[in-house]
Amino acid sequence: MNPFIGSASLVLYFVTRCQASGTDIALDAKATLLHRIDSLNLLIYTCLLTLTVLTIWVFKHRRVSWLHETGLAVIYGLIVGAIIRYAGSTNQVTYIDAHPDANSNYNLSVPPDIVRFHFPDKQMSSGDVPVPNKTYAYSFRGEIVNVEQNEIDLKATFDPEIFFNIILPPIIFHAGYCLKRKYFFRNLGAILTFAMVGTALSALVIGSLMYGCVQLMPASLAASFTFLDTLYFGALISPTDPLTVLAIFSQLKVDVNLYAMIFGESVLNDAVALVLSGAIQNYEKRYSVDGGFEITAFLAAIGDFIGIFSLSLLVGALIGCLTALMTKFTHVRDWPLLESALFVLTSYAAFLIAEVFELTGVVAVLFCGICQAHYTYNNLSADSRNRTKQLFELLNFLAENFIFTYIGVSMFTFPKHHFDPWFIIAGFLTSMLGRAVNIYPLSFLLNLGRKPPIPMNFQHMLFFAGLRGAMSFALAIRNTVSEARQAMLTTTSLIVIATVVLQGGAATHALAYLRIPTGQGQNDENEALPYRDVRSLYQSTETSRPDTPHGGGDGGGEKARLARLWGAVDSKLLKPLLTHARPPLTETLPSFLRPLGRILTTTRQYTQSENSLRRTDSDSDLCIDEPQPVPTTIDPQQLWPGLVDTRISVEGITGSNI
Amino acid sequence: MNPFIGSASLVLYFVTRCQASGTDIALDAKATLLHRIDSLNLLIYTCLLTLTVLTIWVFKHRRVSWLHETGLAVIYGLIVGAIIRYAGSTNQVTYIDAHPDANSNYNLSVPPDIVRFHFPDKQMSSGDVPVPNKTYAYSFRGEIVNVEQNEIDLKATFDPEIFFNIILPPIIFHAGYCLKRKYFFRNLGAILTFAMVGTALSALVIGSLMYGCVQLMPASLAASFTFLDTLYFGALISPTDPLTVLAIFSQLKVDVNLYAMIFGESVLNDAVALVLSGAIQNYEKRYSVDGGFEITAFLAAIGDFIGIFSLSLLVGALIGCLTALMTKFTHVRDWPLLESALFVLTSYAAFLIAEVFELTGVVAVLFCGICQAHYTYNNLSADSRNRTKQLFELLNFLAENFIFTYIGVSMFTFPKHHFDPWFIIAGFLTSMLGRAVNIYPLSFLLNLGRKPPIPMNFQHMLFFAGLRGAMSFALAIRNTVSEARQAMLTTTSLIVIATVVLQGGAATHALAYLRIPTGQGQNDENEALPYRDVRSLYQSTETSRPDTPHGGGDGGGEKARLARLWGAVDSKLLKPLLTHARPPLTETLPSFLRPLGRILTTTRQYTQSENSLRRTDSDSDLCIDEPQPVPTTIDPQQLWPGLVDTRISVEGITGSNI
Repeated sequence: MNPFIGSASLVLYFVTRCQASGTDIALDAKATLLHRIDSLNLLIYTCLLTLTVLTIWVFKHRRVSWLHETGLAVIYGLIVGAIIRYAGSTNQVTYIDAHPDANSNYNLSVPPDIVRFHFPDKQMSSGDVPVPNKTYAYSFRGEIVNVEQNEIDLKATFDPEIFFNIILPPIIFHAGYCLKRKYFFRNLGAILTFAMVGTALSALVIGSLMYGCVQLMPASLAASFTFLDTLYFGALISPTDPLTVLAIFSQLKVDVNLYAMIFGESVLNDAVALVLSGAIQNYEKRYSVDGGFEITAFLAAIGDFIGIFSLSLLVGALIGCLTALMTKFTHVRDWPLLESALFVLTSYAAFLIAEVFELTGVVAVLFCGICQAHYTYNNLSADSRNRTKQLFELLNFLAENFIFTYIGVSMFTFPKHHFDPWFIIAGFLTSMLGRAVNIYPLSFLLNLGRKPPIPMNFQHMLFFAGLRGAMSFALAIRNTVSEARQAMLTTTSLIVIATVVLQGGAATHALAYLRIPTGQGQNDENEALPYRDVRSLYQSTETSRPDTPHGGGDGGGEKARLARLWGAVDSKLLKPLLTHARPPLTETLPSFLRPLGRILTTTRQYTQSENSLRRTDSDSDLCIDEPQPVPTTIDPQQLWPGLVDTRISVEGITGSNI
Repeated sequence: MNPFIGSASLVLYFVTRCQASGTDIALDAKATLLHRIDSLNLLIYTCLLTLTVLTIWVFKHRRVSWLHETGLAVIYGLIVGAIIRYAGSTNQVTYIDAHPDANSNYNLSVPPDIVRFHFPDKQMSSGDVPVPNKTYAYSFRGEIVNVEQNEIDLKATFDPEIFFNIILPPIIFHAGYCLKRKYFFRNLGAILTFAMVGTALSALVIGSLMYGCVQLMPASLAASFTFLDTLYFGALISPTDPLTVLAIFSQLKVDVNLYAMIFGESVLNDAVALVLSGAIQNYEKRYSVDGGFEITAFLAAIGDFIGIFSLSLLVGALIGCLTALMTKFTHVRDWPLLESALFVLTSYAAFLIAEVFELTGVVAVLFCGICQAHYTYNNLSADSRNRTKQLFELLNFLAENFIFTYIGVSMFTFPKHHFDPWFIIAGFLTSMLGRAVNIYPLSFLLNLGRKPPIPMNFQHMLFFAGLRGAMSFALAIRNTVSEARQAMLTTTSLIVIATVVLQGGAATHALAYLRIPTGQGQNDENEALPYRDVRSLYQSTETSRPDTPHGGGDGGGEKARLARLWGAVDSKLLKPLLTHARPPLTETLPSFLRPLGRILTTTRQYTQSENSLRRTDSDSDLCIDEPQPVPTTIDPQQLWPGLVDTRISVEGITGSNI
């Protein structure tokens, strides 16, 4: 549960005193102390991030490329975590055992939300009739499994659910918003195969192998892991997070298709892994309750996976399209602040709506981001484009570095770690194997139908880019109730740290060793901004290429037909409907729908020049960094005398704009 | 306590089940339900804000000016609040009474942080030895004062502390960051008088009058209010929040000095009221404990007020200056994303540091914002200037509209309202009187020493601009423990709603009625962005004016001397130290400090042309919207042959830059 919302739900307005007494003062002091500790914890992370920013500046200034900012954040986190662990004082939580009132008429089987706790109770000192002194409200936190274990402390840790509700959404939205859709769609077959089939395959392989490994280990360990546990581990360790590698790709201007495959896969496999792990947990729940047919529960889990994934996708996409419509048919673009606020609010609403309907908000936000970039972005004013891009870039930067700092710090301060060397070694080996199973066999299959096949050195690079990151950690720390889960968290943390620091650091050498060509393209301006300058390189080398996607043939004729169909629907129906792009609906809709088409077409769509039309069709909307072509003011009557009706006068004043 | 941090502090990792049972499933379902309700609540506000944005666009489009966005947010909030109240279903919180374990060895007088609650307890059903079935953790929420009152529900309400920890900081920071310092300092005497003396006076007058009114009322009411209660009411209702009026000023281009007085006062009196109300509460605490000399506690409260205010100011200013140094002496400006992140992180750190040291974070953030604008802003890259400005503008917009929406919704859904018609009427009358006492006598005194006196119609406008807003509401909702406090909340909410909607709506008419000249200046570009275009108007009418501040003479010679001293220190020491402004420290420091001055001076400071020097001294840094003058590349050897040493070569490569 979101801690922000979590507290909101339990809004109880007692607090503080009417008339101050000794206990009240002590309580006040305690509340103040807690608030100060909270602020101090946040301050630690703020300072760590500031330090990371400054160090990264020095590294960039000195052109050090063997350590990415996320790796640095992890390392600083580890150092500070160790200091807090071994030098900090302990803030022990006080606790007391309590029993329900004997005369209570509470008759539910579920524990209540609030315990009204009478303290100090006369019952304690003497055997008299209980005379409660004061009544305090206590709200439900969860079950205590190990009653003996009292080591609950307050050292720089957060509720794990903040990752799913606060940290991951902006990261995932930003990934969707800055996805280079042209290269993404060109390599869609490969990306989908790696992300959907590959992640499931990898989870299955890692899960099975881990289960085998665990059985070979000391009996105590073997007993604590079920197959579902190891399968869950497989699901959570499968998504990749190759931030470091991509930053280096961007810096060294590596082949754009390779870039698109690695980035696209990492974006989608986060979503797949999240839904997959949810389905495994649901399966566990169903199976253990019914105790019945395993196959039914298994099918239900697959149904869960498909249903939740596609419905979340749908919610995100619909909200994205709705925003596109709102920005197209209103002139809110004249007030960029309002427009940006609208953009942020609807994107956040996509997350919330999915959560309200028990879908996966993170997945909805991803596809909302993609739609916002594909449609809405084209309708925005220059100011809003800039503002939203910069806003999410900043949020993404802060959220990413926060999570990696937290991975470092929590290695020492999180109380629920369980170091099991066998499990850790097995985890490292199987996660590598899982990545190999994801890449090599699937690449072989893809190459059977793919026109320009994925060369062997690209496959090695895809394997090498299998860094693990934020999503794996967030899933691992979500549930640390059993020893098995704690061992998984420890292993996951170590894998993330090792891959981010070591693999990330070696990425430049790997590129050189695999002889992957770098330095394509020439503009150096944006080198500090990841994902940005890859586009220009592609443009400079491929401007003469015809429009048909050359990588669209993967997976045989059926998929290519589907891709072509989607392309046609997108450019002839969705684009003209949701943006100001040409051709207007009046040209593409069947004749009996033309009146409707005329209502849904704006003045700007008619008045767009042929030049900007071509740009829209080929490149301009596919990379959000492209400056929007300035519409030239050609008299619409000259160009399409038949289509322009009387509503059209000056751009932006009348027409079908509300 | 911050709900975000609040939850973080109580990180207890039990949750979910090892082996699922009926109860566990029910608990899971309950947790899911709570999460869905939380998401739904947030979704309601998100949709309300979206609706507000769209309606405001329509209003702006149709040039409707009688309703500002905050007024609209309040009205929408009221409507939706009523719907939730009368149409929504109730999510009753379940509760149970509990007693401490008889064998517990807990020996503190303070209630514990965690109650380990054994449920369902065998004790309940039979008289046997207690055999706890399961143990659950319950965390401390607060004292229950009225045990009979069970109406705790989950309807769209939040922990009041989110206002102080999440909503107000960006609003206040933005106010400091976009403060027009030139006009602010020109009218500093008047602004400080109104904000410091005026707010205290207004609080005292309202407090006393309300106490008198309460004594005249039915005995039951009179008994529940102490003088400190009514004084607290005076403090919380005194700060003004004239958003609506300022938006109209900006639109109609009203006199800049009037604008600066109203805006400057409203920014500062928020801070004053916050610290003042804290001092009153501390006084209450101290007085009731010691039971001793009232005068000691009174002096301690004054000490509190001065100490906390000035220390918070210092923390904020120091962090602002530190950021200026960091941005001056590093080349982090070459990576705008890093630079913006640094800016945001340090500004947030100012808030956290103040909170850690039990100061007022909101006050620290205000002065941090002013310093960031005065110094750091000049060192930032163009990208970062733009990005930070737009970011805080957006955050401010969302936070402001959220709080006004919440004021509307909570009118119906917040369970701790207490409607008392007498108190409400008295509140309206005294708050108006308090505003009058703030403005007219103080204006009279100010006019005795002020060169261009504040004319009578300006005084009426100052009185009229006494809208109440976010700070009053946040202070009122913070503590609703007694009936008196609940009556204050209701009255405050109503005063805020009435002033924002009615006074805000009448602002244009008031301007016309008072014959305050409008339409000064001519540029219409930025009319959608508040606070922005006032500057240019002033520039266009006063460019020929000499540099000495004409309004600096208020309060007699002493204050003017102080202002001049501050101006000299600022332009000769702080500006050259913290920014790239001319003259360099090598010219202004005494000769024995010249070597130090040389280290602290950047190449850019030497190479700045005389032209940009003058701009820096007069206008350029005083309004953050001013484009930064492009440094012309004059050979420094030609201009200051004696001062330039060998370290200087090309701008930005060597010199004293790290």
